[in-house]
Amino acid sequence: MDTLPTFTDVVVAASRIKGQAHRTPVMTSRTLDEELGARVFFKCENLQRMGAFKFRGAFNALSRFSPEQRKAGVVAFSSGNHAQAVALSARILGIPATIVMPHDAPAAKVAATKGYGGNVVLYDRYTEDRERIGRDLADRHGLTLVPPYDHPDVLSGQGTAALELFEEVGPLDAFFVPLGGGGLLSGCALATRALAPDCRLYGVEPHAGNDGQRSFRSGSIVHIDTPQTIADGAQTQHLGHLTFPIIQRDVTDVLTATDDELVECMAFMATRMKLVVEPTGCLGLAAARQMKAALKGQRVGVLLSGGNVDMARFASLLGSRP
Amino acid sequence: MDTLPTFTDVVVAASRIKGQAHRTPVMTSRTLDEELGARVFFKCENLQRMGAFKFRGAFNALSRFSPEQRKAGVVAFSSGNHAQAVALSARILGIPATIVMPHDAPAAKVAATKGYGGNVVLYDRYTEDRERIGRDLADRHGLTLVPPYDHPDVLSGQGTAALELFEEVGPLDAFFVPLGGGGLLSGCALATRALAPDCRLYGVEPHAGNDGQRSFRSGSIVHIDTPQTIADGAQTQHLGHLTFPIIQRDVTDVLTATDDELVECMAFMATRMKLVVEPTGCLGLAAARQMKAALKGQRVGVLLSGGNVDMARFASLLGSRP
Repeated sequence: MDTLPTFTDVVVAASRIKGQAHRTPVMTSRTLDEELGARVFFKCENLQRMGAFKFRGAFNALSRFSPEQRKAGVVAFSSGNHAQAVALSARILGIPATIVMPHDAPAAKVAATKGYGGNVVLYDRYTEDRERIGRDLADRHGLTLVPPYDHPDVLSGQGTAALELFEEVGPLDAFFVPLGGGGLLSGCALATRALAPDCRLYGVEPHAGNDGQRSFRSGSIVHIDTPQTIADGAQTQHLGHLTFPIIQRDVTDVLTATDDELVECMAFMATRMKLVVEPTGCLGLAAARQMKAALKGQRVGVLLSGGNVDMARFASLLGSRP
Repeated sequence: MDTLPTFTDVVVAASRIKGQAHRTPVMTSRTLDEELGARVFFKCENLQRMGAFKFRGAFNALSRFSPEQRKAGVVAFSSGNHAQAVALSARILGIPATIVMPHDAPAAKVAATKGYGGNVVLYDRYTEDRERIGRDLADRHGLTLVPPYDHPDVLSGQGTAALELFEEVGPLDAFFVPLGGGGLLSGCALATRALAPDCRLYGVEPHAGNDGQRSFRSGSIVHIDTPQTIADGAQTQHLGHLTFPIIQRDVTDVLTATDDELVECMAFMATRMKLVVEPTGCLGLAAARQMKAALKGQRVGVLLSGGNVDMARFASLLGSRP
């Protein structure tokens, strides 16, 4: 069993990403505070560079490469925000980047990854195994593989979002964080337990893919098929060997939200707070609304994980509301 | 001729609205900076209370009411952001508010105005004259009428947005401000001439309703029919007797933007900056993009005036792009 990262790793990560990652704003809404009878603080990672918290972990991981690793390059497999985060971090650090993406990934995401200077390798997601392709590339060309969540530097980097939130607003009574593979949640857990030990910490995943909830409640990692949900950043099939034990130790509970709830929250964020938040980014708010009764009079944190949603899709989701 | 307000009025307004209006954030985009070869600073009034700069001027005007005026109440006519700004300011100050709105105003705007405690009086925009109704109510009940732009306290209040921008980022080479009736532009002109005298200042109005440009260039106020444009916050028919002379004296030029350009800018703001900006709010960015060649290497301010756009409309505009 690997040694688990600690809060110290989060603090060190914060010093590494300083000046590169944005210190994202914390926003509030009087309307929501009235709705919930609570004081809610949104940590706006949709306003992070490349539009999601993923830049924190990727930059932290790549900045630790040795000179040899930097020269040989990095490889990552992702159809989403991790791809762009690695490509952008690599460009900043002058490291060649190869990103393995499905051949049917949205053209905008492929273009964004190439725009950041990444060398994109496409694969057929129905017949090929992206992990094997990634590892083959790593072996053949001496590239260093940076996985999307189950990596100590990646999860420590993600935890800097929570570190900044507590630095800015002080202790909280409850904190809601989106959950996919657990990189963000486990990193935030390290910061939360150090800075606000009494704060209730909730991971929130899509209702259709509640492997994290089942893992948390059963005590062992549950694997599922890729779930059908609009929360494309949380379609992971299982927690990681590093993220799971931290989540099990430090998180209060894992909750779920339906796609309909996510669309309502997207509309709220756009209408009242003028912020574009991707479906996955709305998981925390959806769960906070479910728990309204338990939050009365409390100070509540909600992590908005990202804002990368195709505009046609955004328009169609918002336009589909009754 | 009335005495024109001065920069001092803007500074005094800033002290009156302090603690009530948000000091809105200034945001930047590396992508846009690369596109324009310039450094662009967005003053985010879409994140102002009630979603637009209008709160600044309305609160400044209402906070100057005498005890008698406060007791009798305020009246305003508006189908848009001014209505909500007056209703919210009145609620905060404990002043009864009557808002005259067209009977076919969007239900969401009527609901928002009522939600802020405003007493809404509906009229038929095809057969009745809202100004006459407003003045009748004022005369009969002793209410004080607060017009949407042609009022010294209103325009001085709007100017605090520019004051804050210059305080935060220092001098600029060029500054782009949406133009409807001229309250925002004239107020910003007072702040700009005092704090950045060499800054080129541009008002930007919809191409379909270029009365401001024609007035500016001809030297007298031009009246037009209500223009057909998606920029519903700039569908005014003429500049004001206070706003025009300030604009004529202090503004560099008045530019226009087409609806298609505004939709492109809305999409850019949503996709790259994760911000919901209403069509009128995109006028400044659209003009800055037109002037790209003249802005190379310069420091540029763009005022995002508001973010109040019905979500179905927002979705339909973004979804309609090729």
